[in-house]
Amino acid sequence: MSEVLFQRVALIGLGLEGSSLARVMKRDGMAGHIAGCARTRATRDKAMELGFVDSVHEDVADAVADADLVVLCTPVSTFGDLAARFAPVLKPGSVVTDVGSVKMAVIRDVGPLLPAGVHFVPGHPVAGTEHSGPESGFPELFEHRYCILTPPPGTDRDMVAKVAEFWRRAGSMVEFMDAHHHDRVLAITSHLPHLIAYSIVGTAADLESQLRREAVENGDVVETREVIKYSAGGFRDFTRIAGSDPVMWRDVFLNNREAVLEMLGRFVEDLTALQRAIRWGEGETLEDLFRRTREVRRGVVEMGQAGRFIATEAEDSGETES
Amino acid sequence: MSEVLFQRVALIGLGLEGSSLARVMKRDGMAGHIAGCARTRATRDKAMELGFVDSVHEDVADAVADADLVVLCTPVSTFGDLAARFAPVLKPGSVVTDVGSVKMAVIRDVGPLLPAGVHFVPGHPVAGTEHSGPESGFPELFEHRYCILTPPPGTDRDMVAKVAEFWRRAGSMVEFMDAHHHDRVLAITSHLPHLIAYSIVGTAADLESQLRREAVENGDVVETREVIKYSAGGFRDFTRIAGSDPVMWRDVFLNNREAVLEMLGRFVEDLTALQRAIRWGEGETLEDLFRRTREVRRGVVEMGQAGRFIATEAEDSGETES
Repeated sequence: MSEVLFQRVALIGLGLEGSSLARVMKRDGMAGHIAGCARTRATRDKAMELGFVDSVHEDVADAVADADLVVLCTPVSTFGDLAARFAPVLKPGSVVTDVGSVKMAVIRDVGPLLPAGVHFVPGHPVAGTEHSGPESGFPELFEHRYCILTPPPGTDRDMVAKVAEFWRRAGSMVEFMDAHHHDRVLAITSHLPHLIAYSIVGTAADLESQLRREAVENGDVVETREVIKYSAGGFRDFTRIAGSDPVMWRDVFLNNREAVLEMLGRFVEDLTALQRAIRWGEGETLEDLFRRTREVRRGVVEMGQAGRFIATEAEDSGETES
Repeated sequence: MSEVLFQRVALIGLGLEGSSLARVMKRDGMAGHIAGCARTRATRDKAMELGFVDSVHEDVADAVADADLVVLCTPVSTFGDLAARFAPVLKPGSVVTDVGSVKMAVIRDVGPLLPAGVHFVPGHPVAGTEHSGPESGFPELFEHRYCILTPPPGTDRDMVAKVAEFWRRAGSMVEFMDAHHHDRVLAITSHLPHLIAYSIVGTAADLESQLRREAVENGDVVETREVIKYSAGGFRDFTRIAGSDPVMWRDVFLNNREAVLEMLGRFVEDLTALQRAIRWGEGETLEDLFRRTREVRRGVVEMGQAGRFIATEAEDSGETES
């Protein structure tokens, strides 16, 4: 039981992130009162039943009233509307933060709506799973994970320190970054990998349908789900990523458009060079790249071993090919 | 200790696949004598030290002489030369198989070299890890994994059944497929995912270098390995795949060129459509796809739960985003 950092905390959105945050706050006594806000009755009922909040609210203004800390845990496209609705009731001296995967758009959408005297410390815990909903949360979600804070220039330093302390108590390693830089770095480490995974899983599903149709037409034995069946060869890792929350990820791409398109452009250039190397049988080009990427993998594993992050057994078991 | 299926087995190549096969054969008494062939002295010494072979040979003809089963476990580009060297000493009635990830090229390169009276049952155990070398093998590698056999039309049925039984004893689920079909299905489930992973990890490494240079030029604090640091957001899964054996994978791409280029073409088309949707803010297009891919993920998980394959905890823990 740690000292209460914020007396009353309002969690807007009780899915994976919101309910995980509620759980760790409950477990460690990080808040005096946790007010949860969810759009659907089902989620509110589930939250009360699971007991990770002290009160639930349909109206965001009710949840936020008198809160010392407000955490936005819904898809980022909703932030602007939500902020417009709760801004009038924000308590002077309170702080608003969020868990959105993009930061420039959040600063653009939320920042101007907050009244003077209310602090704003945008954040991004780099943690998640493919699951969503209030049942999917767990208190260890943020443990040993980076949480990146991107306070705009001029933000009150004490309040930034307090939000940082809050995330450290939740188990995270806190880093500070400029919002624009955050969006570029995450575009390559997270957004582009997700986009590619979504894309190839779609391509494969279409191909599977086509193979099935062809088999029927030819009178062959129809293997119904061949792509899934042989997914252990690498594809399965992509399906896990492509199983992530559709609305959250739609919003990430729409709200980090420039950086995602830039990284996508770089990726397609490099992929096209590889395509050419395959077409022309340039084995050396391929092997050189594959040796270089193997070194990057070593770096990831070493950083894991060095304790900079804790790789779960899950992530580093090495089941991949062939 | 099961009945000996093949009295003398020659394993050509003692890396991950070869040494894993040796280990399960040893563990379960599947062979009377296991002759291992490796190019380097270091690998041969290591194999004898670890004790998973009964004899080691530098010359492939020595290893193959008198063998009842020959298993090619080297990168597929070496198969033609190897077969040319050992074909003259193959015992009549013996069988040659392999573990190559492509099958048309193997049939093209090896088939014509084998003398009459020697059987040929190409195979592909869909199993592997990112690790390579004789120390990386383990007897459970093939357990609960598919092994796809692609015997050319007219292959002796009893011998095909015997090779199938051999793989079942090694723990695999055996399937039969036309070689051409195999190469297309694996191109989408395995080869393209690897190509994409190699590509994006290369792109990210280049970007990281650039960000570092820019930081130095601007006099900013230099974060040395930012991409690796925040790799938990999805990128880390790609680095695992991109850590796979460079030579083996070079050979896969060069020897399954047509199918890989076809799948790559489909993928790039689909990715370009996504790129356009992001540029034009077409959220519905994105969300529709993401919902569809989530269904594919459900299929993968269900098939795992249905015991059609055993998903390791590693692969399905769901650590992915955000």
